Amino acid sequence: MLKSKGKLNLPSKTKASAGKVYMDYAASFLPNPSSIHSLGIEAKSRLENARKEVANILSTIPENVIFTSGGTESNNLAIQGVVFAWVLDKREKKIPHIITTNIEHPSVLETFKLLEKRNLVQISIVSVEPNGIVDPKKIKKEIKDNTVLVSVIYANNEIGTIQPIKEIAKEIRHFKKNNRQGLFPLFHTDGVQAANYLDLNVEKLGVDLLALSSSKIEGGGRVGVLYKRKNVPLANIFGGGDQEMGLRPGTENLEEILKFSSALKLAYKMKENENKRLLILKDYFIKKLLNLDPDIKINGDLINRLPNNINITIPNIPSDLLVIELSAYGIMVSSKSACKSSSKEGSYVIKAIHPEIDSEIGGLRFSLGRSTTKKDIDFTLKTLSKILKKLGKWYN
Amino acid sequence: MLKSKGKLNLPSKTKASAGKVYMDYAASFLPNPSSIHSLGIEAKSRLENARKEVANILSTIPENVIFTSGGTESNNLAIQGVVFAWVLDKREKKIPHIITTNIEHPSVLETFKLLEKRNLVQISIVSVEPNGIVDPKKIKKEIKDNTVLVSVIYANNEIGTIQPIKEIAKEIRHFKKNNRQGLFPLFHTDGVQAANYLDLNVEKLGVDLLALSSSKIEGGGRVGVLYKRKNVPLANIFGGGDQEMGLRPGTENLEEILKFSSALKLAYKMKENENKRLLILKDYFIKKLLNLDPDIKINGDLINRLPNNINITIPNIPSDLLVIELSAYGIMVSSKSACKSSSKEGSYVIKAIHPEIDSEIGGLRFSLGRSTTKKDIDFTLKTLSKILKKLGKWYN
Repeated sequence: MLKSKGKLNLPSKTKASAGKVYMDYAASFLPNPSSIHSLGIEAKSRLENARKEVANILSTIPENVIFTSGGTESNNLAIQGVVFAWVLDKREKKIPHIITTNIEHPSVLETFKLLEKRNLVQISIVSVEPNGIVDPKKIKKEIKDNTVLVSVIYANNEIGTIQPIKEIAKEIRHFKKNNRQGLFPLFHTDGVQAANYLDLNVEKLGVDLLALSSSKIEGGGRVGVLYKRKNVPLANIFGGGDQEMGLRPGTENLEEILKFSSALKLAYKMKENENKRLLILKDYFIKKLLNLDPDIKINGDLINRLPNNINITIPNIPSDLLVIELSAYGIMVSSKSACKSSSKEGSYVIKAIHPEIDSEIGGLRFSLGRSTTKKDIDFTLKTLSKILKKLGKWYN
Repeated sequence: MLKSKGKLNLPSKTKASAGKVYMDYAASFLPNPSSIHSLGIEAKSRLENARKEVANILSTIPENVIFTSGGTESNNLAIQGVVFAWVLDKREKKIPHIITTNIEHPSVLETFKLLEKRNLVQISIVSVEPNGIVDPKKIKKEIKDNTVLVSVIYANNEIGTIQPIKEIAKEIRHFKKNNRQGLFPLFHTDGVQAANYLDLNVEKLGVDLLALSSSKIEGGGRVGVLYKRKNVPLANIFGGGDQEMGLRPGTENLEEILKFSSALKLAYKMKENENKRLLILKDYFIKKLLNLDPDIKINGDLINRLPNNINITIPNIPSDLLVIELSAYGIMVSSKSACKSSSKEGSYVIKAIHPEIDSEIGGLRFSLGRSTTKKDIDFTLKTLSKILKKLGKWYN
């Protein structure tokens, strides 16, 4: 017997007199939005409501919102999906060409490398300027006849620099107008780090594909979203069921999707105030850091960066060591993308903008959130000063 | 400021006097097992503990357990991973050949079709016998020089028939011994439906790859597992970070993974008793169904089937209609794989074993679980009798 337990109608062991009889355990223990019985239909309606809410925030229609298992999958689906759609289109004879930058997240850069290894793409990697921002003209210069995709991260995960997405979109439109009519090149952006603070209106941004992840918006579960403009040809990378318009087979993670849409709505609501509040904290933090040691280098553009990101290099001191020293005082920061933390190499993002910095020194990232206070920053500064005094004996 | 909130140390807005300062929001709001600070290390240790617990139940080492987003992804990683590893191995010139059956789950069957469409594999599909069970000798007969993979579902999702996995493994070993030394063909089984009731000891089963999903073991979150025997060459299908031994990039869904390992342990503990209890309920159900109407057909072998699965065909009455009629009385059952519920075609599994049954009639699946009681079954039988009386006027 089944007892209604909260909104999701979870089966429970409690015997219910007027309850429901759940005999669809093989479909899923939790209501499966693909089931055609009433619990399935209810689950489907919750799923579609979440899709509508996400679509509203992106200023698009629900059919353009695909739920995935996370940011990595969303970026993979965008990139591999476009490449395979092109390859499967028998009219296209040329190997597809893609353009990206040298500071993309591993889930973008490594996906291109994986496809290159399989002889499925040619890649052009455009280097960002020393301030960590790419020049849209340099992107445009790389566009060729067989360029199917341009992929540029919206805001960088390590140094927080914001890329000129609208300007790049304009250059691509300009190329298409003058050189060929049609869909290609498509424009993809990894918006995972941008979601809390930047505009997610896909029409204003002018992107065809946008990836989001719940793990970077506070309160979200573990879910990803891929926005795909209507008519953009996309092949699924998984084989399986008909879920998510056939583009992402597998039972939908309904509970986490509901958490995601709520978290995205909340982030949208708090965006303006959090931007203001964190900007003040960030500027205060940077000012005090430079007071501590004027030789500290702030990595990435000072203006065009996320309000929650401070990335610094302290001369001669390895950043990994600083992460561990700060952790001992209860302060959690990072030295490079957690996705590449087990690699022995230093941060390729810091290397891209400061080739003169030893890769072992690298950069130290402080990324703030809703619970961060001025008191936290003062405690961090005091602790860092203590650590630098101790380490200075050995490292200066 | 951060306050320790339960075991996962979730950041909270509460100011903590002696609390931690979390400045790693860009890595993840929740502790990220890839972070090198103390919260990351703690998360990593919880993750590795869950991996060890799952490995214990499978009788393998933790390094052979890969966490994914679900059963569909696990099956895709197994199949696409083996095919791409073969394709990337420059010594192998021939297009890989795979063998499977005609009653696999869509996440297996559709994945092979997807790879075939991309000219990456040749497929041989072996038909099961009318009782829904494949003949191991027929599998063996299909093995060729370039056969890289045999994939047979452990227990079918629609009709619950249990395949002779150990015998198939033996035939493959026999072939290898007599024809060539080496790893290939590898043997993969989709164990998603089997996990609650059957032996998951991979050594006894003799499989190289085994897929599991949390959504079919009660209490699990939305997570999948792929067991991969050591030395089995597997290429990742996502590009990205170094997580899961580099085979599954993307931040691990730690909370859901913890739920999964607990649920799997519980299922293991309850296995023997639940098998006994459900077998009695199932036999009672079938006996009473045949009393109701002796023309009701039980689909799939009566002995070699999961104890929680009853799949029937009622002459002349479309199964989709029965799902909806039963749902109106609060009884949740299904007519085919929920993964293919939006398709207009009938169940291909029922078609495979009973080509004489009209595809619109199909089969009706009752799948029982821990909360199912005899009272539930009596209520279902009474309701079904009522519905059949009503529908009989039009359909007989």
